[in-house]
Amino acid sequence: MNDEASVEAPAGPVLIDCLQYCRWSRPIFEDMRAGAVTAVHATVAYHETFRETVDRLAEWNQRYQRNSDLIMPGRVAEDILRAKAEQRTAIFLGLQNPSPLEGDIGLVEILHTLGIRFMQLSYNNQSLLASGWQEAADAGITRMGREVIAEMNRLGMVIDMSHSGERSTLEAIELSRRPIAVTHANPSSWRDTRRNKSESVLRALAQAGGMVGLSTYPHHLRGGSACTLESYCEMVAGLAELIGVDHIGIGSDLCQDQPDWVVGWMRTGRWTFGADNDGHGPVFPAQPQWYRSNRDLGRLRHGLQAVGFSEQEVAGILGGNWLSFMTHAFAPATDPAASPAEERKGDRLWASVASKPNR
Amino acid sequence: MNDEASVEAPAGPVLIDCLQYCRWSRPIFEDMRAGAVTAVHATVAYHETFRETVDRLAEWNQRYQRNSDLIMPGRVAEDILRAKAEQRTAIFLGLQNPSPLEGDIGLVEILHTLGIRFMQLSYNNQSLLASGWQEAADAGITRMGREVIAEMNRLGMVIDMSHSGERSTLEAIELSRRPIAVTHANPSSWRDTRRNKSESVLRALAQAGGMVGLSTYPHHLRGGSACTLESYCEMVAGLAELIGVDHIGIGSDLCQDQPDWVVGWMRTGRWTFGADNDGHGPVFPAQPQWYRSNRDLGRLRHGLQAVGFSEQEVAGILGGNWLSFMTHAFAPATDPAASPAEERKGDRLWASVASKPNR
Repeated sequence: MNDEASVEAPAGPVLIDCLQYCRWSRPIFEDMRAGAVTAVHATVAYHETFRETVDRLAEWNQRYQRNSDLIMPGRVAEDILRAKAEQRTAIFLGLQNPSPLEGDIGLVEILHTLGIRFMQLSYNNQSLLASGWQEAADAGITRMGREVIAEMNRLGMVIDMSHSGERSTLEAIELSRRPIAVTHANPSSWRDTRRNKSESVLRALAQAGGMVGLSTYPHHLRGGSACTLESYCEMVAGLAELIGVDHIGIGSDLCQDQPDWVVGWMRTGRWTFGADNDGHGPVFPAQPQWYRSNRDLGRLRHGLQAVGFSEQEVAGILGGNWLSFMTHAFAPATDPAASPAEERKGDRLWASVASKPNR
Repeated sequence: MNDEASVEAPAGPVLIDCLQYCRWSRPIFEDMRAGAVTAVHATVAYHETFRETVDRLAEWNQRYQRNSDLIMPGRVAEDILRAKAEQRTAIFLGLQNPSPLEGDIGLVEILHTLGIRFMQLSYNNQSLLASGWQEAADAGITRMGREVIAEMNRLGMVIDMSHSGERSTLEAIELSRRPIAVTHANPSSWRDTRRNKSESVLRALAQAGGMVGLSTYPHHLRGGSACTLESYCEMVAGLAELIGVDHIGIGSDLCQDQPDWVVGWMRTGRWTFGADNDGHGPVFPAQPQWYRSNRDLGRLRHGLQAVGFSEQEVAGILGGNWLSFMTHAFAPATDPAASPAEERKGDRLWASVASKPNR
C-alpha cells in the first residue's frame, strides 16, 4: 500500500467518478486512494462478445484480489459507504454497448449476477436495442430494447444513454420505470456535438429523476484539451439552473494510460474494415490539465465553489448525487408496480423546483 | 434411392424454390426428386449465434453425405446445371437474420466460405444492419449495414430483404451495387400485411435487376390457408404487369414437418421472455392444398398457364429467372467498379420495358 495514499485519504464527503476506462494498474488504483475517490464506474466492454466480456470480468476478479488494499468490488450502494470507511475505492462495472448480450435477453440477469451495474443501450452505432449518436437516423427504442429496459428495471441495472441518439434517449427516459443515467456527456449548448446532450434530453432526464455525469473528455469540452476549469464550472452552473444541481455528477471518461489503438477499437470495433474517419484521427486527445488522474476529482471543488456552488452542492456534484441515485438504482424492483414511482418521489428536491416538464 | 424419384425426374426446365425451412429428412429430399426440383434455398438460421450456425452447417455436411444420391451442396450457379444433369437437387444455404455475424464484419466472408449464399439484413426486428417489418419505426440501413452490403457485394452473397422494413428495403436496393432479392414475400396489395411488399418496393427491386420469390406461407396469402391457386396465379399475373415477369420466382417459405415450437423460435428467439403475440398464435398454419411439398412446385405451371403466361414465362417463374439471377449474384465482384453496372445491363429484358423508375 502506498504511504502517500494512506496519508492523503481524507475524511469528508464521498467522491464518485461515474465513468472511466483507464488502462487499469496498481498506480491508477493508488491515484484513486491519493485522490480519496470513493467509487468509480469502470467500463468493461465496448464491442465485446459475451465470452470476451467474461474474460474482462475475470481480469477484474484478479485486480480485486491483487489490490484488495486499494479497491473492492461495488455491487450495491452500501459498498460505497463501506469503501469510504475502509479507505478503499469501490469499482462498479458497466458496459458501453449491449454487444455482450448477443441478442439474448437472458444474459441481462447473467451479466448482472456477474457484477454489471450499468449498460448503455447503444454505443455510437445502432444496436439491437437503440440507436447511437453517429447514425444518420434514429428510430428510437426497438422491440427488444423495450424488453431489455423492463429487465434492467427489474434487476436494478442502470440504463445509460451516454452514446445514444436523441430520440432513443428520450424514449428510454419515457419507457424506463426507474430513473436512468447519462454517465458521461456534457450539454451540447456548451460544446456543439451530437455526442453531447440537448436541453430537451437533459431536462427530461432530470424530470424523471435521472443523473448526468459530466465528462472531461476533450471532444466533449468547449475548447477541447485547452478547456479551462473556469469554463467547465460555468457550464456546470448553467446546467444546474436548467435541471437542478441534484441531477449532476461527474463521469470523467478518463482513459488514462490507454494506448491509441484503443481509440480505434472503440470507434471501429468489428463493424467495419475501414478506419472510422471522424476527423479526430485515431489518437487519444490530451486531457485538460485540470483532470488527468483520479487525484483531480476532489480538486474540482475549488472551481465549483468559485462559480457560486455551496459546499453542500459541491459535495453533491462530486459524489453525493451519484450516491443518492445509486441507493435507489441498484436495489432490485421488489414491487415492480409501486417502487419506481416511490423512487422518483424519494429524497430528491428537484421535483418541486425542476424546470417545466418536457416529456 | 427412391425408385419413384428416378422414374419421375423429368427433363425440361429447372425448378427452383428460393426459400424453404423444412424439418429436413430423407423423405423431403425424396419429394424434391419426385418433384424434379433442381435447387432449393434452405434457411440455416433465424436467431442463432455464429457457433450455433456452424453446428447447423455441420449438420448440412452430414445430410449431403448421407443423401448424396438426392442432394448436393450449391455454391455457384453452375451447380444448378450440374444438379439438373445428375438428377439431384442443389441446396443453397442462407440466413434469415445477421445474428450469426455477432457484430463482426469479418464473419461475412467466413460464412460465405462455409457456404452461405443469402443473408437477410434483418428478420422481423431491428438488427445491427437494418430494421425489420415488425418494428414501429424504420431508420433505414445502419452504418454497419452499409459496410456489410459492400462486403456481400464483393463476395457474391445475396442481400435478402424479405422480412425487412420498407425504408430499409428501399435503401438496401439503392445502396447495393448488385441486384438484391426478396426471396419470400408477396405484394401487400394482394394480402395486406407489412410483411408483404409495397408496389414501391417491388418496382424499385425490379428496376435494380432484383428478384422477388413469391411465398406460399398462409399469412402472406389472400385468404390464408384457403387461398386458391387461381387467386395466387392472378396475383402473379398482376405483379408481372407491374415489374416484368423476369423478376418473379418462387420462394415458397415451405416449413414442412416442422413442429409448432419452431414458430415460437422464429418469432421470439431470445429477444423477449414473453410470447410474441401477433394474434396468429404459436402454430404453423396449414399450407394451401396446392403447395404442401416439393412435389407441388412443378404443378404450379398449370395455374400459371391458365392466367395467360407462355410456356417460356412459366419456365422463368418456376426456376429460370432465379437461375439467371444467381448466375450473376454468386459470382465474386472481380471488378468492383465495373461489374455491377454490367450485371444490371446483362441479359435481362426488363431494363427497356420496366415501369417508371421509383428510386
